[in-house]
Amino acid sequence: MSLHLIIGDKLYSSWSLRGALALDLTGAAYTEELIKLNQPDTRERVLKHSPTGKVPLLKTAHGVIADSLAIAEYLAEQFPEANLWPKDTAARAQARSACAQMHSGFFALRSNMPFDLSRDQALPSTPPEVAAEIQRMLALWAECRAVASETGPFLFGPASLADAFFAPIAVRLRTYRVQLPAADEAYVETIYQWPFFKAWQKAGLAEVTQ
Amino acid sequence: MSLHLIIGDKLYSSWSLRGALALDLTGAAYTEELIKLNQPDTRERVLKHSPTGKVPLLKTAHGVIADSLAIAEYLAEQFPEANLWPKDTAARAQARSACAQMHSGFFALRSNMPFDLSRDQALPSTPPEVAAEIQRMLALWAECRAVASETGPFLFGPASLADAFFAPIAVRLRTYRVQLPAADEAYVETIYQWPFFKAWQKAGLAEVTQ
Repeated sequence: MSLHLIIGDKLYSSWSLRGALALDLTGAAYTEELIKLNQPDTRERVLKHSPTGKVPLLKTAHGVIADSLAIAEYLAEQFPEANLWPKDTAARAQARSACAQMHSGFFALRSNMPFDLSRDQALPSTPPEVAAEIQRMLALWAECRAVASETGPFLFGPASLADAFFAPIAVRLRTYRVQLPAADEAYVETIYQWPFFKAWQKAGLAEVTQ
Repeated sequence: MSLHLIIGDKLYSSWSLRGALALDLTGAAYTEELIKLNQPDTRERVLKHSPTGKVPLLKTAHGVIADSLAIAEYLAEQFPEANLWPKDTAARAQARSACAQMHSGFFALRSNMPFDLSRDQALPSTPPEVAAEIQRMLALWAECRAVASETGPFLFGPASLADAFFAPIAVRLRTYRVQLPAADEAYVETIYQWPFFKAWQKAGLAEVTQ
């Protein structure tokens, strides 16, 4: 199966990271194409691949799939043996709930704490709506762990699409130096030790000097 | 299987309509609970069911599922014989792309044209970003029809989750009196003739006088 992933800057594109982590979970070979964001020709270049004008995009034998969540579900279906979603039905339902909430919400956190792998600085002050969303996020992670039926350092035991979706949040919590309870700090560290994430981080940081 | 759907006002809650249409597609029996929105106790009542504080919610044997898209995927999985997603893989991938785009975008359209089943009035003037999103929406519908491998009046032939997700857009286009090409006007009419939608509309309009 031919898979071609189109992403934005690894340094800045949190949704690209989600799509790439989902693809990594399949273990499948794929090719990657990076379109630098915020350039005069960025939109034009993306539009050549998809009328959405957004990344990530996954080119497949079944057409171009737009949006990280649609990419995730497509890959989960195409690679059933890779168990991208948790195997247990209740855990899987919770994982999907969690990813969908991430996909359509947490706007205060996202807009006030833009994704930047090279950052290492707290916000000067944390707006109350951001603090509330961080607390809600940690509660959501706890809900996931409570339903997990397998053991492991990720939200549902072994790495799943839920971790692909929350990895960019782990990055924000660390790069904005948010103080965390031990369980959440351990989870952030789990993301930072994820081999694919480490390679992405290294490539992203290399973009700074390009 | 016990299924209990928690929704907001039928008149106003576009995401509740999506969840309910998804459930209708399964043909399964379920119970419904309406929590009136924008009341002093709304948030408290929703929080009793889910820490998200949002509707729709689906209570199942596998826990409470938050978010219409997670509800959709859960139902598609639990009722495979109902073919909630298109049967063809490429069509299914496009349907998921389309729903995910709806789920995480079209904010200008959503905020400038709030869902209200009782409305019958054009916007005084249409902001350019709203006009652009309407054009993008119609293009997205055309992309869906182009990939469809079955015949029928809905986006992919027979009714699917894509139609559950776009029904509230059809409502906005009609209630804000947006002029449409014939194919799109026919699609809006298809939604308005969907028996479950007609029942929902009737119940929603009855809320006005309560």
